[in-house]
Amino acid sequence: MHKYKLTLAYDGTHYGGWQIQPNAVSIQALLEKALLILLRTPTSAVASGRTDAGVHARGQVAHFTTETDLDLSRFQLSLNGILPPDIRILSLEKTTLDFHARYSAISKEYHYHLHLERTTDPFKRLYAYHDYSPLDLNKMQAAANYFIGTHDFTTFANEASKGSAAKNPVRTIIRLDLCKEEGGIRLEFEGNGFLYKMVRNITGTLLDVARGKIALETLPKLFEAKDRRFASPAAPPRGLFLVKVNY
Amino acid sequence: MHKYKLTLAYDGTHYGGWQIQPNAVSIQALLEKALLILLRTPTSAVASGRTDAGVHARGQVAHFTTETDLDLSRFQLSLNGILPPDIRILSLEKTTLDFHARYSAISKEYHYHLHLERTTDPFKRLYAYHDYSPLDLNKMQAAANYFIGTHDFTTFANEASKGSAAKNPVRTIIRLDLCKEEGGIRLEFEGNGFLYKMVRNITGTLLDVARGKIALETLPKLFEAKDRRFASPAAPPRGLFLVKVNY
Repeated sequence: MHKYKLTLAYDGTHYGGWQIQPNAVSIQALLEKALLILLRTPTSAVASGRTDAGVHARGQVAHFTTETDLDLSRFQLSLNGILPPDIRILSLEKTTLDFHARYSAISKEYHYHLHLERTTDPFKRLYAYHDYSPLDLNKMQAAANYFIGTHDFTTFANEASKGSAAKNPVRTIIRLDLCKEEGGIRLEFEGNGFLYKMVRNITGTLLDVARGKIALETLPKLFEAKDRRFASPAAPPRGLFLVKVNY
Repeated sequence: MHKYKLTLAYDGTHYGGWQIQPNAVSIQALLEKALLILLRTPTSAVASGRTDAGVHARGQVAHFTTETDLDLSRFQLSLNGILPPDIRILSLEKTTLDFHARYSAISKEYHYHLHLERTTDPFKRLYAYHDYSPLDLNKMQAAANYFIGTHDFTTFANEASKGSAAKNPVRTIIRLDLCKEEGGIRLEFEGNGFLYKMVRNITGTLLDVARGKIALETLPKLFEAKDRRFASPAAPPRGLFLVKVNY
């Protein structure tokens, strides 16, 4: 038995997300199809976590096990030869049998790109959320600080499916930075884990604070409510990138 | 009579180029359709020059004339409301009747993006040319210097249509810089004008010099030959951006 760790980048625009599902093409399905072609036996790929429909990745990590002892460089080229050009294997390495793409992860980093110029940009239209309302970025930064640390994030999590709220809704956000970039800002999240739609729900809430729709002082009450209806709508998937998984 | 100057950005991926043509959707056709809807009379848009199928623009300039005295801000919003999101009007201003998007231009700036990492990047796949052969960038820079200045560029121009070579094939390249960027380099061209496919043909030739396929010393002979067959194949359109037109 051999275990391999893959690092992937993908443009999520045309996919139904990472996870295999009916009625949409998923990254996992295409990867497992490529593995089946090359290894000639059904092989599951386990990712660090799902990404939703339309969410992008620059550093998703997945593992798979196989009886075959692979020529790493050649196998990576073969996978990339089969996969469509909007999904790329950036690296392939052998790992230990106890490695698990999801359970071994210590932290994950996400970036959310906000494009804030007057006119939308054809080259950012699929990779950022455009907002031209007046935003108070100082307030947004102050609001971001409320999310850093260990909290019960129930208010900022969607149920993955009816009645399937995470058993433990406590997560730790290590870092939540506002970084200037050309044409807008980038929210950099690092945490030990994120609940379903948590990054996008927090981003939506931060946007509402910056728009003056939510007062800073009410943020603790949102946490206390432990009710998704108290947070703002999720920011759209196209602005979100899974950037790095740390092990 | 009023004359207006438009600055446009477009993602050329899904278009047959700027110019109206049979069998492909063009940026000009969509713009003129939007002008027809808003002005209720057929209105031509004249650009600084064509861009080919698949070529992008961050700062294409076009003009049109109309009997209507426009509310600039509102008209720009209306145009952007009708145009698809991969074509944007970045600015609209009133100009003098003697302004001409093509003939008044003093110089034009193009960027060609080369992505040089081992694995292609899903987010650059439509906006850069990927090459992972070993490239000698010092040689490429040395070769670039041969193109700066005033030359007969016949060897580096395609005929726009059978027998329609430009009457005057002499052009001046003011600047041709190699700039490092994330994952590769960007060739920055500025010139008083460019013949048909000239930027892509020069880029293709610079790539062949960097690959060691063309010796630096032979470059003057390519110019002297005045024959397109002596230059390398054109670099693909996806790496090319019309960045700015100077008046």
